[in-house]
Amino acid sequence: MRRTVFVIQLSLCIVIFDCLCSITVGLPQILAQSKTAILQKYDSLAVRMASTALGQNSAIDMLGELCKGIGPRLAGSSQAAKAVQWAKEKMAEYGFQNVHTEPVTVLHWVRGPVESAAFRIVGQKKTTDLHICALGGSIGTPKNGLTADIVEVKSWEELRVHGVSVKGKIVFFNRSMERSLINPGAAYGRAVDQRTYGAIEAAKLGAVAVLVRSMSTRIDDVPHTGQMKYDSSVTKIPAAAVSTKDANDLSELLKRGKRVAVTLRLTCQRFPDVESANVVGEIVGSEKPDDVVVVGGHLDSWDKGQGAHDDGAGCVHALEALRLIKELGLKPKRTIRVVLFMNEENGLNGGLTYAAEKHPGERHIAAIESDAGGFSPLGFSVSDSLALLKLQTYAPVLLPLRADHFVQGGEGGSDIGPLRRKGVVCLGLQVDGQKYFDYHHSDSDTIDKVNERELELGASAVAIVAFIIAEEGL
Amino acid sequence: MRRTVFVIQLSLCIVIFDCLCSITVGLPQILAQSKTAILQKYDSLAVRMASTALGQNSAIDMLGELCKGIGPRLAGSSQAAKAVQWAKEKMAEYGFQNVHTEPVTVLHWVRGPVESAAFRIVGQKKTTDLHICALGGSIGTPKNGLTADIVEVKSWEELRVHGVSVKGKIVFFNRSMERSLINPGAAYGRAVDQRTYGAIEAAKLGAVAVLVRSMSTRIDDVPHTGQMKYDSSVTKIPAAAVSTKDANDLSELLKRGKRVAVTLRLTCQRFPDVESANVVGEIVGSEKPDDVVVVGGHLDSWDKGQGAHDDGAGCVHALEALRLIKELGLKPKRTIRVVLFMNEENGLNGGLTYAAEKHPGERHIAAIESDAGGFSPLGFSVSDSLALLKLQTYAPVLLPLRADHFVQGGEGGSDIGPLRRKGVVCLGLQVDGQKYFDYHHSDSDTIDKVNERELELGASAVAIVAFIIAEEGL
Repeated sequence: MRRTVFVIQLSLCIVIFDCLCSITVGLPQILAQSKTAILQKYDSLAVRMASTALGQNSAIDMLGELCKGIGPRLAGSSQAAKAVQWAKEKMAEYGFQNVHTEPVTVLHWVRGPVESAAFRIVGQKKTTDLHICALGGSIGTPKNGLTADIVEVKSWEELRVHGVSVKGKIVFFNRSMERSLINPGAAYGRAVDQRTYGAIEAAKLGAVAVLVRSMSTRIDDVPHTGQMKYDSSVTKIPAAAVSTKDANDLSELLKRGKRVAVTLRLTCQRFPDVESANVVGEIVGSEKPDDVVVVGGHLDSWDKGQGAHDDGAGCVHALEALRLIKELGLKPKRTIRVVLFMNEENGLNGGLTYAAEKHPGERHIAAIESDAGGFSPLGFSVSDSLALLKLQTYAPVLLPLRADHFVQGGEGGSDIGPLRRKGVVCLGLQVDGQKYFDYHHSDSDTIDKVNERELELGASAVAIVAFIIAEEGL
Repeated sequence: MRRTVFVIQLSLCIVIFDCLCSITVGLPQILAQSKTAILQKYDSLAVRMASTALGQNSAIDMLGELCKGIGPRLAGSSQAAKAVQWAKEKMAEYGFQNVHTEPVTVLHWVRGPVESAAFRIVGQKKTTDLHICALGGSIGTPKNGLTADIVEVKSWEELRVHGVSVKGKIVFFNRSMERSLINPGAAYGRAVDQRTYGAIEAAKLGAVAVLVRSMSTRIDDVPHTGQMKYDSSVTKIPAAAVSTKDANDLSELLKRGKRVAVTLRLTCQRFPDVESANVVGEIVGSEKPDDVVVVGGHLDSWDKGQGAHDDGAGCVHALEALRLIKELGLKPKRTIRVVLFMNEENGLNGGLTYAAEKHPGERHIAAIESDAGGFSPLGFSVSDSLALLKLQTYAPVLLPLRADHFVQGGEGGSDIGPLRRKGVVCLGLQVDGQKYFDYHHSDSDTIDKVNERELELGASAVAIVAFIIAEEGL
């Protein structure tokens, strides 16, 4: 009897001890078990996906059609319209289902035939050309250009200190992207406010134009464009990007106490809005067709270069991901939908329009965007901390691609940001983008900078994650 | 009393249960604890290292001195001698201790002024030039070249089937690197035997020369050289690499049943061995100076291009790693020694000589080589499974660089292979090398293919791992 009581007591103690253990190490254990289960289920998926992708090597040809066949695709341009047509045909060719376009109204801004700038040290005759380009959305200058002294600032605080002394002058925003940051995207984030809001803040103080240091860590002669904004209550002034090398040279002259005058001439202008479109196609889910995983990139680009890394690569990642899933004969339980968004660069109307659509009966369970370039994949950013825990259990599956990093942060991509704000879990493909800002928004963003193997690995990573989410839910 | 007994029995049971738990989950727990401890101790190391590296950006200038200042550095050449001198001066400039050279005898092979090939469809007059280059170590052809029909083979088995019918002919080894493999290094490993042993096996059957498809996954006009071997008991025949595009074209003609004759002319030859050197410098350990962590790359390169990725980048990684450790004011407990090896490409005498040295009183605890290119780091291969478990606890420290993959395999690098065979744990820096074989051993391996930020991150990864090993031991 005493023995029986002891055994019962002991069993009870072990149970309690076990429970305590579970509470302490419960979540890690559950996650470890999920990891093992996911790996067992999708063990060979990464190698099968990547082997097919690398062996067939069709992504680079697709990107060639977009970059060389069509070229840069600024929203509102005839090339953007061609890209919409191309994407629709491509999706049909690959046998995607429910291929269609969804109308998006976009602004229509045109760079115009002339953009030039030159500087002169006041008191000297010699003028030196600068490598510049209009920032996207800028108004033009008077027909014969405008000439004014430049005032360099590196921060809003410096601008405030200058105050109305910048009246009648060109404000030269020259804060560098911090090259010591490991993530160049973070460096971009810390510098791009000058480009976006420079014209507004300078105009408030009476400046006549702004020159903004190009957003690049590379020191060269290539100007990088990008979106700038006006405030309807503030005078609009022209805004141009200047190459990093020229920015350094100008800064050096100013440091040496020279007065520098710049003549700027831009013929860019805005036309009435036009109608464009997002392009959509899908693999309909075999069990839960109304549960949707969106996979996307943006079809528009800036009007410089070919929009190869930004974001031809992202469009190709999305198209190729669905093609690969079909090629492998996989039939996802939930719908995987490719959405190629229009107008990410200068308005975001594609993303906003898609998120505003009713899509009756549907439930978006996740959205994945690739908008960081066609480099080797490293993993995914995830907008939601609980989803992150689940997605981290996919890491071992992605290990063969070295794309096993799931990290919290961001909204996955600008186009899917509006979906995130509606509660959809958003993922952004992260790539080895140390070179991204060498090319971004400039004449350098051409297909010769994209490696066909790296491009295919990115598509494979997107395909793998989209497929597992479509199978497992989130 | 009964209560006391029960408590004792219960305590005993819990202890036993606890022991069982420890046995089952012991190792993972210990590793998890080590991981946490290492991360706490070296928490900010990666960010500090990489910020300094990226901010100062000195690696690319160093590589410029080697690649543009000196150029390609085939062992035995005057440029290789210049590189030895340069490396010694660089180490002195950076304040490394015990800077010296260690003599290495190397063979002296010279490509010569002429190498050319052209093909003709037998029965037609038109000749078409081929993009070729002599394989390293090849004998030359007769002065006016040699002409013979080509026979294509893709495997040793195919060659065996052809048998003595290849007598008097040129054997054309045309097995592609398998582009469907995720790791291009593995694809290289499966194809390079043709280049290494092709001349021996073809000569055994009476062939007069070999043409070998270039080791590249890219289809272009660039021939890639590399080491080939002779067997002293077999007639030596000339051996050349042909570009992948030409290889495809030749194969197409043969498939269409054409008889194709190739005229090959090579003026390469071997001269008597010369004396060269490994270059060595170090940071002497503050507590255990006789325990040594070697960090290395190879100073020699092929005579094509500039030897930028192979292995200028590896030399710069090693030099920059020690410079960064000093720059951060770190004083490792054990000695960290940079060894720039001579003659990796065509003899390996640098690695063999270093490992054969006595180094009295010293204990080599690890050797790290970078010989996979100057791309973004992904992690390290580790030669030893027990060391791997320990090194995997460093992973969280390297996470900010996304260089947290420690995987088992290999010998770390050819130069440190001889150390591994003496029991030293060897690590190889793994990088994002999808493009590596586009450039490897060819005129394309020039510094413009190296990104300064990726190069610095590689150096940072090497510095971090070398420093932690020097602090913690292995």
